[in-house]
Amino acid sequence: MNLLEQYQAVRENTELICLPLEIEDYVVQPIADVSPPKWHLGHTTWFFETFVLKEYLQGYEEFDPQYNFVFNSYYETIGSRVIRTDRGNLSRPSVKQVFHYRAYVDSQMEILLSQKVVDESIIAVITLGLNHEQQHQELLLTDIKYILGHNPLFPAYSISDRFDRPAIVNAQYINIPEGLYEIGYGGNGFHFDNECNRHKVYLRQYTIATALVSNREYLEFIQSGGYQDFRFWHAEGWDWVKQNHVIAPLYWFYMDQKWMQYTFKGLQELHLDEAVCHVSFYEAAAFAAWKDARLPTEAEWEAAAAQLDWGQRWEWTDSAYLPYPGFSKAAGAIGEYNGKFMINQMVLRGGSVVTAEGHSRNTYRNFFHPDKQWQYSGIRLVI
Amino acid sequence: MNLLEQYQAVRENTELICLPLEIEDYVVQPIADVSPPKWHLGHTTWFFETFVLKEYLQGYEEFDPQYNFVFNSYYETIGSRVIRTDRGNLSRPSVKQVFHYRAYVDSQMEILLSQKVVDESIIAVITLGLNHEQQHQELLLTDIKYILGHNPLFPAYSISDRFDRPAIVNAQYINIPEGLYEIGYGGNGFHFDNECNRHKVYLRQYTIATALVSNREYLEFIQSGGYQDFRFWHAEGWDWVKQNHVIAPLYWFYMDQKWMQYTFKGLQELHLDEAVCHVSFYEAAAFAAWKDARLPTEAEWEAAAAQLDWGQRWEWTDSAYLPYPGFSKAAGAIGEYNGKFMINQMVLRGGSVVTAEGHSRNTYRNFFHPDKQWQYSGIRLVI
Amino acid sequence: MNLLEQYQAVRENTELICLPLEIEDYVVQPIADVSPPKWHLGHTTWFFETFVLKEYLQGYEEFDPQYNFVFNSYYETIGSRVIRTDRGNLSRPSVKQVFHYRAYVDSQMEILLSQKVVDESIIAVITLGLNHEQQHQELLLTDIKYILGHNPLFPAYSISDRFDRPAIVNAQYINIPEGLYEIGYGGNGFHFDNECNRHKVYLRQYTIATALVSNREYLEFIQSGGYQDFRFWHAEGWDWVKQNHVIAPLYWFYMDQKWMQYTFKGLQELHLDEAVCHVSFYEAAAFAAWKDARLPTEAEWEAAAAQLDWGQRWEWTDSAYLPYPGFSKAAGAIGEYNGKFMINQMVLRGGSVVTAEGHSRNTYRNFFHPDKQWQYSGIRLVI
Amino acid sequence: MNLLEQYQAVRENTELICLPLEIEDYVVQPIADVSPPKWHLGHTTWFFETFVLKEYLQGYEEFDPQYNFVFNSYYETIGSRVIRTDRGNLSRPSVKQVFHYRAYVDSQMEILLSQKVVDESIIAVITLGLNHEQQHQELLLTDIKYILGHNPLFPAYSISDRFDRPAIVNAQYINIPEGLYEIGYGGNGFHFDNECNRHKVYLRQYTIATALVSNREYLEFIQSGGYQDFRFWHAEGWDWVKQNHVIAPLYWFYMDQKWMQYTFKGLQELHLDEAVCHVSFYEAAAFAAWKDARLPTEAEWEAAAAQLDWGQRWEWTDSAYLPYPGFSKAAGAIGEYNGKFMINQMVLRGGSVVTAEGHSRNTYRNFFHPDKQWQYSGIRLVI
Repeated sequence: MNLLEQYQAVRENTELICLPLEIEDYVVQPIADVSPPKWHLGHTTWFFETFVLKEYLQGYEEFDPQYNFVFNSYYETIGSRVIRTDRGNLSRPSVKQVFHYRAYVDSQMEILLSQKVVDESIIAVITLGLNHEQQHQELLLTDIKYILGHNPLFPAYSISDRFDRPAIVNAQYINIPEGLYEIGYGGNGFHFDNECNRHKVYLRQYTIATALVSNREYLEFIQSGGYQDFRFWHAEGWDWVKQNHVIAPLYWFYMDQKWMQYTFKGLQELHLDEAVCHVSFYEAAAFAAWKDARLPTEAEWEAAAAQLDWGQRWEWTDSAYLPYPGFSKAAGAIGEYNGKFMINQMVLRGGSVVTAEGHSRNTYRNFFHPDKQWQYSGIRLVI
Repeated sequence: MNLLEQYQAVRENTELICLPLEIEDYVVQPIADVSPPKWHLGHTTWFFETFVLKEYLQGYEEFDPQYNFVFNSYYETIGSRVIRTDRGNLSRPSVKQVFHYRAYVDSQMEILLSQKVVDESIIAVITLGLNHEQQHQELLLTDIKYILGHNPLFPAYSISDRFDRPAIVNAQYINIPEGLYEIGYGGNGFHFDNECNRHKVYLRQYTIATALVSNREYLEFIQSGGYQDFRFWHAEGWDWVKQNHVIAPLYWFYMDQKWMQYTFKGLQELHLDEAVCHVSFYEAAAFAAWKDARLPTEAEWEAAAAQLDWGQRWEWTDSAYLPYPGFSKAAGAIGEYNGKFMINQMVLRGGSVVTAEGHSRNTYRNFFHPDKQWQYSGIRLVI
Repeated sequence: MNLLEQYQAVRENTELICLPLEIEDYVVQPIADVSPPKWHLGHTTWFFETFVLKEYLQGYEEFDPQYNFVFNSYYETIGSRVIRTDRGNLSRPSVKQVFHYRAYVDSQMEILLSQKVVDESIIAVITLGLNHEQQHQELLLTDIKYILGHNPLFPAYSISDRFDRPAIVNAQYINIPEGLYEIGYGGNGFHFDNECNRHKVYLRQYTIATALVSNREYLEFIQSGGYQDFRFWHAEGWDWVKQNHVIAPLYWFYMDQKWMQYTFKGLQELHLDEAVCHVSFYEAAAFAAWKDARLPTEAEWEAAAAQLDWGQRWEWTDSAYLPYPGFSKAAGAIGEYNGKFMINQMVLRGGSVVTAEGHSRNTYRNFFHPDKQWQYSGIRLVI
Repeated sequence: MNLLEQYQAVRENTELICLPLEIEDYVVQPIADVSPPKWHLGHTTWFFETFVLKEYLQGYEEFDPQYNFVFNSYYETIGSRVIRTDRGNLSRPSVKQVFHYRAYVDSQMEILLSQKVVDESIIAVITLGLNHEQQHQELLLTDIKYILGHNPLFPAYSISDRFDRPAIVNAQYINIPEGLYEIGYGGNGFHFDNECNRHKVYLRQYTIATALVSNREYLEFIQSGGYQDFRFWHAEGWDWVKQNHVIAPLYWFYMDQKWMQYTFKGLQELHLDEAVCHVSFYEAAAFAAWKDARLPTEAEWEAAAAQLDWGQRWEWTDSAYLPYPGFSKAAGAIGEYNGKFMINQMVLRGGSVVTAEGHSRNTYRNFFHPDKQWQYSGIRLVI
C-alpha cells in the first residue's frame, strides 16, 4: 500500500467503527475520560488539517476556522482550547457536518498525496497522523462501550464476534535469566518518541506467566474478600476502592445472584475463561499481592515479549511512565505528544482486541493513570 | 375545545417547539438545571402513561417498562429514579423512539378520551398533565436557549419574531393604598395547590412601576460599577458574583467593545429598550438597591396586578416560596408537585414571552433559587 | 446600672464563659460555622476598638494594626478580611495576647465612659456593641459545645446545672382567633434594625402548643422510621438527610443499644422529658409533617408569645428571614449587620438556655440556614 | 551510646524542637499535609507504646486506651483511626497531657531497656521507632514552618543560625562514565525496607552538577516568564500552576517591589546565594526544562553521591517511588511502613538542613507527591 492507500484505509476504518451508532450516541460524554465519538471524528481530522494541509498544501482553504476551537485537544501551542469536560455539551457542529468536514479534508489530502513529490517531512507528519488516528480508533471503541454500557437499556453495539478471543488455558511460567538486556525502539519504522532511546537494562532472574489472568481467577479474588482487605492494596488504591464503592471490574454487574458483564453484544453472563479486562492498576496490583506475585516491570515485559502470548489486553506493568535515557521531545506542537504526560501514570504493554490492526509492537508504551478501568486492561503475573 | 382537542393542541405544541432542532440538540445537558429536550418529551409523556393510562385505561399495555426508570423525575413515590445530572449521558432511547413513545401514548389517550363517560377525577389528572406539559414547554425553550447559547457556534433557533416584544417606554408609578387585600386563587378553574388558600393580607401603602426595568437601565447599573460594589448585594449574592465572575446577565457577551446578546435569532447587538432578562434574584435585588428602590412582595404584586403590564418576564419578588395559610398537599405522587420545594426559593410572578399561551394568571406562583438566571426573569421596582 | 457598669458586666461575662477552657480549646475550628473561642474574644473587642475608640476617643492608639485583619468578620466596609474558614489555622495571636487586647480596650473604654459628656450616638454604638457581644456569648457556648462534643474524649465543660431546665409536661394547645395583629418592635429600648417596622398582619385562626416538643416525642418519630420516609421531608431536606447520613439530632449517639447525648456535663443518657434540641429546620418541619401539624409563622409566634412558655430553645418558624415593611438598613458598616443576610435563611424565635440573660425579647428575630443544627434549636407545633 | 542513651537522646531532641512554641501552635492544622505538633508528639510515643511496651514489657499498663484512637496514623492493622484531616480539630488531649504521656512511656521504656537481656527483635523495633521519630522531627520542623509562615503576623520560630548554610558558589559539573553500578543498601546497619535489595543498574554516561540550584538562578527563571510558559511544564504541572495561581516557591512573598521569604527567623529579604528551597517536583522539572537540562534519576544520583555536596535540600529526582528488585514488605503493621505508598510519588534523595543529624544516608529514599512544596526540597541538574 502506498501512503494514499494507507491514508484511505485508516480513515475509512474510523468511519466503519461508527457505523452501528445512532446519531445520539455521537454526542454524549458520561465522564471526563470519555470523549463523544463526534469529537474523535473531528479531532483526528483537525490533526491533518492543521499539521498537514495548512502547512503543506498550497492554497488550502480552512473548512471552518471555528473548528480549530472545537476540535483542538491538548495542543496548547495551537490557540485556545475547549475545556475537555465541556465536549459533551456541544450539540453542534452536527454529526452530518463533522462527516462533511472529514470528506472535505480527505479530498484535500488526496490532492496533496497525488502530487508527484511528497517530501520526507510531510510523510513523517502524515504517518504520525495515521498512528494518532489509530489510537483514536481504539478510544472510539472504549468510549462507545462506556456510553452504551452505562445506559440503563444496555444496547448492543454489534453482534459480530470480532472482539472475542480464545479462552485462557494452560498458563505456564517461563524463566528469564539474569543479565543485561536492550529495550526501546531500535529499528527504522514508525515509532513514538517515548520508545527511544534503545538502551541497556540489567535484570535479575525472574519467572513470568505466558498467559493473562482469567475472569475465573479474578472472581476467586473477589469471592475470597479481596476488595475488603486493605493489606493487598496501595494506600491510594484502598481509598479509591472505598470512595467509589468498587467491588469488581468495570462492566461487571451482579444481578439475580449471577455475575453478568456488559459486552459489545449486550449484557451477557460472565465468561469465566476469558482474560480479565477493565481493571485498574490498583486492582491489578492488589490481585498480584493476593497471589503472592507481582506485576512485571516494562523492561521485564519487553525482554520476555517474544515468548509471551500478548495482544488481548493492555497489560499493567509496575513501571511509571517516565523518559528513557536520552529521550528528547520534538519541537512544536508534535512535541507535546508524549513527554508532558510523563508523571503520575503507569505503563501498559502489549495491545488489545480493540487496538487497530498492526498498530502496536513490543516496544510500544501505553500509559494511563492507575485508577482508570475503561480501557481493555488486564493482568500478567511475575512470581 | 373539548378535552381531547385541548390534549391534542398542547401535545402538538410541544413537538412544534422541537421542530427547529437537530437530533444532536435533543441529547445534551450542559448544566444540571437544563434537561435534554429528549427528556422533556419523554417525561411529559410518562406523566400521562403513569397517572392516566395505567390507572384508568383498561387493558393498557405499557410502552416499555424501562422508560419509567428513564423518564421519571422528582416523583419519589414512583420507583427509583435516574439521578438528575445523569440525564445528559443517555443517548438511548433515541429521539425517534421517544417520538414513537409519544405517538403511542397519544393514540391510547385518544381512545380513553373518546369513551363516552370520562370521570371527574380523570379530567382533573389530565388537566394537571396538560398544565404540567405547558410548564415543560417553557422549560424546553429556556433549555434549548441555554444549549444553543453555550455553543461556540451560536446557532440560531428560529428567525421568527414570535419572542419579540414592544420596547419598554413611559414607565410610570402608581400608588396602592394601605389596607386589607385578598390574594390567592378563589375561582373554579384549574390552578396549582400552591395558589391556595385565598386569604387576607394587610398591606402598607406602596408605589409600584407599571413597566419592567429595561436593558438600558440595567446597563447603567453595570457601567456605574454595580457588580463591583458589595453594598448593593446580599452577602450570598456577593459570594455568587465573586465565585462565578458574573459581570452581566446571562447571554450578554462583551465583544469588540460592544455588548451583544444571544437570542433565539442568534447573536445580536443588545436591544436597549427591551425589558432586561435572564437576571438572578441576586441581580434583581442589587439593581433595586442601587436604585434606592426594592422588589415587590408577591402580595403587593398580586394586589396591583390588574394595573400592571405583565407577561414579558417572570418577575422576581422579595417573597420566599412558602405555603399559604391553610395549604395542604394532595395525597400520592401528585402531592409531591409543589409543597416539597417550599424552602430556599424565591417567588416569581407574571409570565414570560416563552410561557405557554393562557398558562399563567395573576395568582400563579413560579419559583426558583435566587442564583438562577436561565429563565426569562426580569425586574419590576417598588419605590 | 450605668453604661460603664453594663459594659463591665457584659465584658466580664464573656470571659467567665471561657473560664473552664484549656488554652487548646480556644484555637480550633472543626467546621466553618464554628469559630474558635479566641476569635470571638478578639472580634467582640475589635468591634469596640473600631467603631467606638477609633471614632470617639481622642488620642486613642490602636493596640495592633494587624488585628484589624485578624478579627474583622463580615464587615466588608472595613478593609480586607481573613477568609472565615481560615480562622482555625491561626495559632497567633496567642490566647494571652488576646486577653491583653481585651484588657487594653476595656481600660480605654473606661476612660471614654468616665468622661463627663457621652454623646447619644456613642451610647447607641456601645449599646449595639454590647448586644453584639451577647450574641457572641451565645455563639461561644454553642461553638465550645461543638468543639468538645466532637472530640473522641468527650470532655465535660462544667458540672454546673445552669443549662438544665424543667421537663416538658402538660403541653396544651391554645386558640388564637382570626384578626389583625401588630408585630415588630414598637418601644424605645434597644432593638435590631430587623425588628422594624412594627406593622399589621392579618392572621387566620390557629391553635398553638404552649410547650416545646420533647425528646420523648422526637424519639418516637425516629423509631417510627421518620428519617427513612421521604414524604415528610422537603426535597432539599431529604437530600441533606441522605448526603449526611443523618439519623438523629446533633449530639445524639447510639451506643451499646442506648441513646446517649453529649451535654456540657459530658456524655449522658438521653433525658426523655427535656425539650428536643439541636435539630435543623428540615428536621423540625419533617417532625411536624409526621405529626400532621406544622410550624408557626413568625407572626403567629409573636401574636401568641405572651401565652407561651418560651426561652428554652430557639424555635424554628416557617417564615423566611426577609425585611419587614419599611425596613431600611443603617449607613456604614453597622448597616451590614442584618439586611444582607435576608436570603435563604429561616427565622427562629424565642431564646435558649445559652442566650445571654435579658438579651432576647418577643420581637427578636434570630435566623439560620435550614440545615444548621449546632444552635439550641427546638420545635413548637401549630395544629 | 547504648540503646537507652540513644533512645533518650532522640526523644529529648523531639521536645527541644518544640521548645520555642506557644501552646496554641501545637494544635492547628492549616492543610491536610501538615499535622499539629501535638499529634507528632503523641504519635511517636504511641509507636513505642504499641509496638514495644504492649508487646514486650510484662505488666505494662496502657496510659489511656483512647489514645490509640487519637494517635494512630496510617496503620490500618491497628484498630480504627481518626481521619487525617480531622487532626486539627482536636483540642484535647491537651499539650500538657501529651507531655505526660511521653514521660510515662519514656519511664516504662527505661525500665524495659534496663533489663539485663534485651532481645534482638526488640532492638530492631526500637531502632525502627527511633528512626521513625527522627522522620517526625523533620516533619515537626516543616509543619511548624508552615503554621507560622501562614500566619499574618509571621512570627519567628528562633533566632539561631542553625538552619543557615553556606552559599551556593562555584557549581561544577562532573562526568560519570557509562557502566554497571550497584545501588541500594548493602550494609549491616539500620535501613528502611525500601532501600533493599542492593542491585545492579546500567547507566549511560551523564554529567551532573556538584552543587544545588540557587535562589538567584531560580529567580531568573521566574523573571524570564517561566511560570507563564506551558512548554516547560508537565501537563499536570501546568494545571497545578493555573489552579493554584503559583508564581514562586512556597514562602516567597513579593512585597513593596521586593522578593521576601519567610524563614525560621521571620520574614527576610530573599538570600540570592542560598540553594532554592520549597519547590514542587513540577517546578523542579520545569526549571530543568527551561535550562535545557533534566533532573537525575535516583540511580544516577546514588552512583554520583560520593562526589556531590549533598544534605542541604532534599533533591527531587525523575524517578517514581517504586519497589527495588526483590523488595518485600515485612509482616504486620510495620510492613505498612513503605510499600503501600509506592504509587504516584517521586523519589527525593539526600537530606536537608532540618533532617535529624545522622538520619539520612546515600541510599535513603524519601518520597512525596509531585505537587508538594512544604518540605525542604531543592534542585540539582543533569546536563
